[in-house]
Amino acid sequence: MDGVAIGIDVGGTKLAAGLVAADGSILDRVRYETPRDGDEIVTIIAEVVSTFAAAHHVGAAPVGIGVAALVTADGGVSFAPNLPWTNFPLAATVRALLGVPVTVDNDANAAAWGEFRCGAGRGIRNSMVMLTVGTGVGGGLVLGERLVRGASGMAGELGHIAVLEGGPRCACGALGCLEAMASGTAVARMGREAVAAGVADGALGALPLDRITGKEVTIAASAGDAAAVEILTAAGRWLGIGIASLVAAFDPEIVVLGGGAMQAGHLLLDPAVAAAGERLVGRGFRTLAPIVPAALGDDAGLVGAALQALDGVRSPTD
Amino acid sequence: MDGVAIGIDVGGTKLAAGLVAADGSILDRVRYETPRDGDEIVTIIAEVVSTFAAAHHVGAAPVGIGVAALVTADGGVSFAPNLPWTNFPLAATVRALLGVPVTVDNDANAAAWGEFRCGAGRGIRNSMVMLTVGTGVGGGLVLGERLVRGASGMAGELGHIAVLEGGPRCACGALGCLEAMASGTAVARMGREAVAAGVADGALGALPLDRITGKEVTIAASAGDAAAVEILTAAGRWLGIGIASLVAAFDPEIVVLGGGAMQAGHLLLDPAVAAAGERLVGRGFRTLAPIVPAALGDDAGLVGAALQALDGVRSPTD
Repeated sequence: MDGVAIGIDVGGTKLAAGLVAADGSILDRVRYETPRDGDEIVTIIAEVVSTFAAAHHVGAAPVGIGVAALVTADGGVSFAPNLPWTNFPLAATVRALLGVPVTVDNDANAAAWGEFRCGAGRGIRNSMVMLTVGTGVGGGLVLGERLVRGASGMAGELGHIAVLEGGPRCACGALGCLEAMASGTAVARMGREAVAAGVADGALGALPLDRITGKEVTIAASAGDAAAVEILTAAGRWLGIGIASLVAAFDPEIVVLGGGAMQAGHLLLDPAVAAAGERLVGRGFRTLAPIVPAALGDDAGLVGAALQALDGVRSPTD
Repeated sequence: MDGVAIGIDVGGTKLAAGLVAADGSILDRVRYETPRDGDEIVTIIAEVVSTFAAAHHVGAAPVGIGVAALVTADGGVSFAPNLPWTNFPLAATVRALLGVPVTVDNDANAAAWGEFRCGAGRGIRNSMVMLTVGTGVGGGLVLGERLVRGASGMAGELGHIAVLEGGPRCACGALGCLEAMASGTAVARMGREAVAAGVADGALGALPLDRITGKEVTIAASAGDAAAVEILTAAGRWLGIGIASLVAAFDPEIVVLGGGAMQAGHLLLDPAVAAAGERLVGRGFRTLAPIVPAALGDDAGLVGAALQALDGVRSPTD
């Protein structure tokens, strides 16, 4: 089979893989829990590839990997807070093991490429900003139909722009990053704070502190819990403030929001659009780029990783 | 004379023009106060061009104009808080009047182009971020040897990224923009606040409130006034926080700081470098791009505008 690639999205908790056609459609897929051991992750990647190869006669299909990590220019993992790798030559290792072309990129960049090629950013010519909001906040910038890579392959760390210097501490160590204000982790923190302070009366207030996650807050909010709705509104507004900064810097054609947190839908999207609009349109001289949800949902990462492999996007200084 | 262009930097208070060679050197120059009337500005531009043309036999030299304004894709001024123009077709007007090629760009973009081509960014291949710190904070992004323009020609408004949502109100209407925390206007505000609060004992404290400007604070700080030094340190740190956001988003090869405020030198630069480093290098996995002063000083705008005309950079969707 020509014109297909295997895309693998290696996250902190799950590893999703798919056989992907050039139009972004997923022909087959598998899903694992991400092992705690780095060698085991490589073993699973090899298994996935050989399973797809045997079942679909795609032994020479290129492999694209998106990984929740900072990725170096040669496809190595330099730093991954939630994966058992530090300075690990992932692309070289998998390439040597399988003998096929392998590209490795940051998962948020892969997702941005997926949305740009076959999702919400399809047809965009000038520029696209994508924020991937999950446990953290990742980002990808597409400019002139290419991902912006930066001088050392580390552009697009959009979760670490400052929105409230002096605010809550981010996982990265700095204070008041967008990620510290608007990620699933931040939503969970706000949920625990609300319950601890006794201001959450409804479904959220009934949960024990150690069970409060971003997902639980979203479930409570979707069921109408007022405190939970307020928390998602706050997180959404911070997202919008970060988006306004990115619009001021880039003037993108479109802003795409993806990642697990977007399951909150309009509870997160509406305040984001409102807050971005207040910062920008209030100035009276700028039209706000459309802010839209990702079209590929949770599959953006694996689809984008596969398309990067198909498109011959090399790791990640291209 | 071949290979020369006329560069004109139209600011809110002064209009500087020069005859510029391809290597960025200034062969002749003039300087005016900017008239309060838009037609008079155009008249001065025409005078400048005909004077240079007559004196140096450069009648067909292209003209590049950098203007303190939001500039549209066809070289019109859409919005200029400190100039008597709104939705004014500046490029078309000057082109019709003089019959030579005319490019018009935002002054901070022009300055960034000047520094990129013949200043602190010379030799940069991947990317450069420039912040122009004066009355406001302007910006320019160079990526892959081109200015980043954005979908509507308005990219690079780096003074309007949020650094302290909820902070002081910016001239643009939003709260806590970089410009509201680190511009000459912000330094003047902090100076007035310090004097009004009685915490400025030295040279700064001796000034009447209505004489406190960013320049006066810088003069006091350079003479060792402790309160003034503290204000520049605060402004410099905010600059550094904004720079850290831009480094996270772009991963530039170099960050260049220009504009009148840079006359404060290390009093502003050192805290900027320190604060940016604390946000980024503290994470242990990112090297900070060098943060350097502009090499062309106050001439960056006019040199860059001339080089844009020479380089055939069209107004501003290129």
